[in-house]
Amino acid sequence: MRKRALPLSKVYRLLEPGPVVLVTTAGSGGPNIMAMSWHTMMEFEPPLVGCVISAKNHSFGALEATGECVLNIPTRELALKVVGCGNTSGRRVDKFAAFGLTPAPASVVGPPLIAECYANLECKVVDTRMVPDHNFFVLQVLKAWIDPTKKEPRTLHHRGRGAFMVAGRTIQLPSKAK
Amino acid sequence: MRKRALPLSKVYRLLEPGPVVLVTTAGSGGPNIMAMSWHTMMEFEPPLVGCVISAKNHSFGALEATGECVLNIPTRELALKVVGCGNTSGRRVDKFAAFGLTPAPASVVGPPLIAECYANLECKVVDTRMVPDHNFFVLQVLKAWIDPTKKEPRTLHHRGRGAFMVAGRTIQLPSKAK
Repeated sequence: MRKRALPLSKVYRLLEPGPVVLVTTAGSGGPNIMAMSWHTMMEFEPPLVGCVISAKNHSFGALEATGECVLNIPTRELALKVVGCGNTSGRRVDKFAAFGLTPAPASVVGPPLIAECYANLECKVVDTRMVPDHNFFVLQVLKAWIDPTKKEPRTLHHRGRGAFMVAGRTIQLPSKAK
Repeated sequence: MRKRALPLSKVYRLLEPGPVVLVTTAGSGGPNIMAMSWHTMMEFEPPLVGCVISAKNHSFGALEATGECVLNIPTRELALKVVGCGNTSGRRVDKFAAFGLTPAPASVVGPPLIAECYANLECKVVDTRMVPDHNFFVLQVLKAWIDPTKKEPRTLHHRGRGAFMVAGRTIQLPSKAK
């Protein structure tokens, strides 16, 4: 799969629909992966993304220490790997090895991209003021990559307790929205 | 359609998948509706929801003044009404009348529920510290309503420029996640 750079002004189109993302970090213990559903766009350009990463997660420490992560967006065929990442802790498991995911070098941050994900967003932390109360980080997307062949990605959308809605068809409506 | 109260501990299951919501407010100019995609869960219980409501929106003033709103979750059959709400401003249009949506009294807040939406979350603003920089409000859900007959709601998920992904099938995976 060859990816191309996605203009930063279009990043919101990937995250607005609410897909589960796989967050990669690279702390002193090496690269790690966590599954995350609590995120939102906050600004179009430069793209800002707000997300909740609990202090209970192994990724929290790496994100706090390095200020960098990658948001990788998986599709249907990766579903079992996604829940595998969600069911385990990077404290004990090398998730790349355990779930057969391929780390690929990012262009501007330390943590790796996950090659199997159809889109990857390289991010740095830009606002931590809501971390103490809410574990809420504001990220700026510095570089975005997409597989241009995936026109209607079958993303996964968590509905609780392991129930995932799989993205259905896309319809075009007469909206004036950006 | 008769709705039942949904336990607050289950609210995250409605918002995690990233549906477009219709936000109702009730300012001095009367009730209003806006379409919104930039939201995230922030806590399970009591449920906290973070959302971006631009200061350019008519709803911003009402939300700031009253500290209350309702998040109403529409499904596929309401798609044209949703984009209608998104294409117009409450400064000039009574959106309930213009789009044939039915206001119903909320139980603990001033703004109305939208009867046609399959779920409704009555909310109050609990944190405004990121409003000056990011138009980011933290809401607490006080009361939640759901149509118990909608097991797989065909929610709408904005992909930019009027493209909406319609929720597909739900699959069950062996996830240990809440």
